[in-house]
Amino acid sequence: MDEDMKYMQAAIDEAKLSLSEGGIPIGSVLVRDGVILSQGHNRRIQDNDPLMHAEINCIRNAGRIGRYGNTILYSTLMPCYLCAGAVVQFGIPKVVVGESSNFGGAEDFLQEKGVEVVNFGLPELEKMVADYIERHPEIWNEDIGTL
Amino acid sequence: MDEDMKYMQAAIDEAKLSLSEGGIPIGSVLVRDGVILSQGHNRRIQDNDPLMHAEINCIRNAGRIGRYGNTILYSTLMPCYLCAGAVVQFGIPKVVVGESSNFGGAEDFLQEKGVEVVNFGLPELEKMVADYIERHPEIWNEDIGTL
Repeated sequence: MDEDMKYMQAAIDEAKLSLSEGGIPIGSVLVRDGVILSQGHNRRIQDNDPLMHAEINCIRNAGRIGRYGNTILYSTLMPCYLCAGAVVQFGIPKVVVGESSNFGGAEDFLQEKGVEVVNFGLPELEKMVADYIERHPEIWNEDIGTL
Repeated sequence: MDEDMKYMQAAIDEAKLSLSEGGIPIGSVLVRDGVILSQGHNRRIQDNDPLMHAEINCIRNAGRIGRYGNTILYSTLMPCYLCAGAVVQFGIPKVVVGESSNFGGAEDFLQEKGVEVVNFGLPELEKMVADYIERHPEIWNEDIGTL
């Protein structure tokens, strides 16, 4: 749990970095054997790229690591189907999530496919995302495909 | 069908372009109301990017179009979970596929989520991909997460 919170804090720092850049505050970290392989954040706004969700950005930043069997993906928000699809396709066995109150994402799909999902339900993240959605509903809906 | 084959041919041309670049021969085209919005191909090798599957590259190349409700995604190969996840998350209602003999992908998942899937089963594509897999089994397995 302490280790998990250390990596989640790195994901939260990524979310805050995105916010400071004018982007959507979602962050992600990929960890293997206690080592952070990569970090990333949503870059839809920054890169004008509709697919650059935080988890996609993070996994991309790890480069071509080939095997994901012993990795854990941390994300400040429950992954959507795009990001959950990446997790399932590449065989990432565990996802640790900051919160899902603002977005239920693809939790059922992850669990059906045997991915372990741990959800911290962190009030700090729930508030940060809720505040963002209130200020930028159109960008949020664009990001989750519900415009 | 004739229209569909026209767009599929554009996807096949993308797959061949990738092969000529030293990449994995999978191509994709996004169409709306009879207009090609974007084309793309697998760029794992070219960009050293593990997430740059053909469909991801194609959807990215369309830019931030916001709404996908009246689009059709053409792909030379049955989409994997990553690419199917993008289709489901952004609400692309129909996928036209060149073949699935070399990779069954996430067809069940697409259909469960209400996406219409049309599969042409084109011998030309079956052979092109089978030949590639025979020559580059490691790159292929890396691309589909089964190294």
